[in-house]
Amino acid sequence: MIAGIPPNLEYRRGVLRILDQTRLPWEETHVEARDAEAVAAAIGRLAVRGAPAIGIAAGYGLCVALADLLARDPEAGLTAAREALADARARLGAARPTAVNLPAALTRLERAESAFCRTAAKATAGDLLDRLEAEAAALHRDERQVCEDIAAAGLSLLPEAATLVTHCNAGPLATGGIGTALGVILRGHERGRRFTVYAGETRPLLQGARLTAWELGKAGVPVRLMPDGAGPGLILAGKVDAVIVGADRVAANGDTANKLGTLPLALAAARAGTPFYVAAPWTSFDPSAPDGAAVPIEERGAEEVTHLAGRATAAPGAAVYNPAFDVTPGDLVTAFLTERGVLRPPYAFGRDAECDPA
Amino acid sequence: MIAGIPPNLEYRRGVLRILDQTRLPWEETHVEARDAEAVAAAIGRLAVRGAPAIGIAAGYGLCVALADLLARDPEAGLTAAREALADARARLGAARPTAVNLPAALTRLERAESAFCRTAAKATAGDLLDRLEAEAAALHRDERQVCEDIAAAGLSLLPEAATLVTHCNAGPLATGGIGTALGVILRGHERGRRFTVYAGETRPLLQGARLTAWELGKAGVPVRLMPDGAGPGLILAGKVDAVIVGADRVAANGDTANKLGTLPLALAAARAGTPFYVAAPWTSFDPSAPDGAAVPIEERGAEEVTHLAGRATAAPGAAVYNPAFDVTPGDLVTAFLTERGVLRPPYAFGRDAECDPA
Repeated sequence: MIAGIPPNLEYRRGVLRILDQTRLPWEETHVEARDAEAVAAAIGRLAVRGAPAIGIAAGYGLCVALADLLARDPEAGLTAAREALADARARLGAARPTAVNLPAALTRLERAESAFCRTAAKATAGDLLDRLEAEAAALHRDERQVCEDIAAAGLSLLPEAATLVTHCNAGPLATGGIGTALGVILRGHERGRRFTVYAGETRPLLQGARLTAWELGKAGVPVRLMPDGAGPGLILAGKVDAVIVGADRVAANGDTANKLGTLPLALAAARAGTPFYVAAPWTSFDPSAPDGAAVPIEERGAEEVTHLAGRATAAPGAAVYNPAFDVTPGDLVTAFLTERGVLRPPYAFGRDAECDPA
Repeated sequence: MIAGIPPNLEYRRGVLRILDQTRLPWEETHVEARDAEAVAAAIGRLAVRGAPAIGIAAGYGLCVALADLLARDPEAGLTAAREALADARARLGAARPTAVNLPAALTRLERAESAFCRTAAKATAGDLLDRLEAEAAALHRDERQVCEDIAAAGLSLLPEAATLVTHCNAGPLATGGIGTALGVILRGHERGRRFTVYAGETRPLLQGARLTAWELGKAGVPVRLMPDGAGPGLILAGKVDAVIVGADRVAANGDTANKLGTLPLALAAARAGTPFYVAAPWTSFDPSAPDGAAVPIEERGAEEVTHLAGRATAAPGAAVYNPAFDVTPGDLVTAFLTERGVLRPPYAFGRDAECDPA
């Protein structure tokens, strides 16, 4: 935890309490999701966002779904429970397409469910709920530790004093712990590193302006907000020691889908010889995608671009192209910062053994 | 002129009527500037913007200043007139720092003034005003023709059907004619070329969303608006035939200052092998700047990034880095489209003769 930054997700039996990130930094309001549909809706409209946080929310979402069934039908058996869980997995899995953490979390809980049902023949649906709650909490705990390990990996590479560029939000709000890219910065700052951060505002939904500037401000890290177009010029001018961003999905060859606006920073960093680091938990790596072309890129609605808080920001009737992510070619990534350590090219994440740090 | 797009600047004795581009596309309101201060203020707050348009406004601004003197003191002599003009040049010249068209226009009118005063010994301040009005109108006329010649240069390079990316606004509103980058597109469309345009919204002031989408829409050119971060991914995906942008100042080596967000497109185009064209009148070339480092880059206020229409869009109190322009290295520019034709590398605009097309 980072002092001053409230938790993004809190689960107690049957209820997932979600800090509504669409209202930050102006209001700290919460959504109390009591069925899978409500959790999926919160993910879909970005009330909870960030690849690791989406995975954690989906894990708790399955618990919410089963608790919901038991509230409606306390006599429900294991068969009904597993049907409800399958239905919830379908709903939650369709909430957003790009981050692989979402299906990974659902698969983790599905495996726990299957193993439990194989071994505990006389178990009740309530017993299964206990088991799934434990697994979702373990997932959350694991993600917390992953953030710490990623921070350690990142801090091993960064100098004592550094000017850093980041994009979107890969902080506590986006994860279950201190963050991935921002976790490196926050832990480093706490330990006396002298980091200055330039954060892209992150159009269209302004996660950088609203969330990253807010989180870094609360933690006392010097931060300057900038339009997304400003990062590349800053990098080419030699004013940046490293770029550090998160990831929504990393393909087997290192191609990295992350928030729209990441690729321009990578292109500039490559030209300038500035290190470009991607901080990502191992759950964001998808060996089944050979390269970036295999990663589904979510296209979002036009109104995100044409309106802000209900006010028109564009010419009336303008057609819009609004992809949520871009794909940074793996050859532009200097290193991945993961809980398994620092991974350097050549990248071949499809063959696990070759990627582990020596 | 392009049907449906109102003129950005209209001068009649003593009054420069400026279409207030900060209110577009919602309202077509005008500023009637009757002294140099008002013209400078309109330039400073971007009521009129775009390098060529700023130059034209500054030319008329000198006429406004002299007419203002004569309205207050009909007996004013040539000495007082020239003092008023020197004062107006200082005010107008300081209105914005980056576009070289502004000082170039002031110098053009100053030369006309000096020549007139040398040869017309018995002239009155009223005669000088006639002369300056003629020169400002000639500048405006020249800029109109320049747009046509740039369009011809651009159309010689583009295929019959093309998907194009542009940034900010280099259309009729930004110039005295049909535009530079958009002039190519608008004339091509008129002549039956099948152009589709992706336009960056252009944070923070949304000139792409507000002005380019509006102009292209009025002219019937298919256009899709996108967040500024989306262009590079589109280019790397091979979906773009050419990038075409304007320029605020081009250094002797081809380094090009243009609206923030241009550089990322150039970096992506270079990697993808996509042509990156800069459409610019010769007045935007500054042989006195050896490279981009010599071009002053305007930093604008924080509130452009932290607020939109009075509404906070960022974490309260966030510090901001808000440069209005970035510098694209000359080696990333495939060609310059100018009224002198298509200019290709190596660029050495300091030595004029070498740059003219064969």
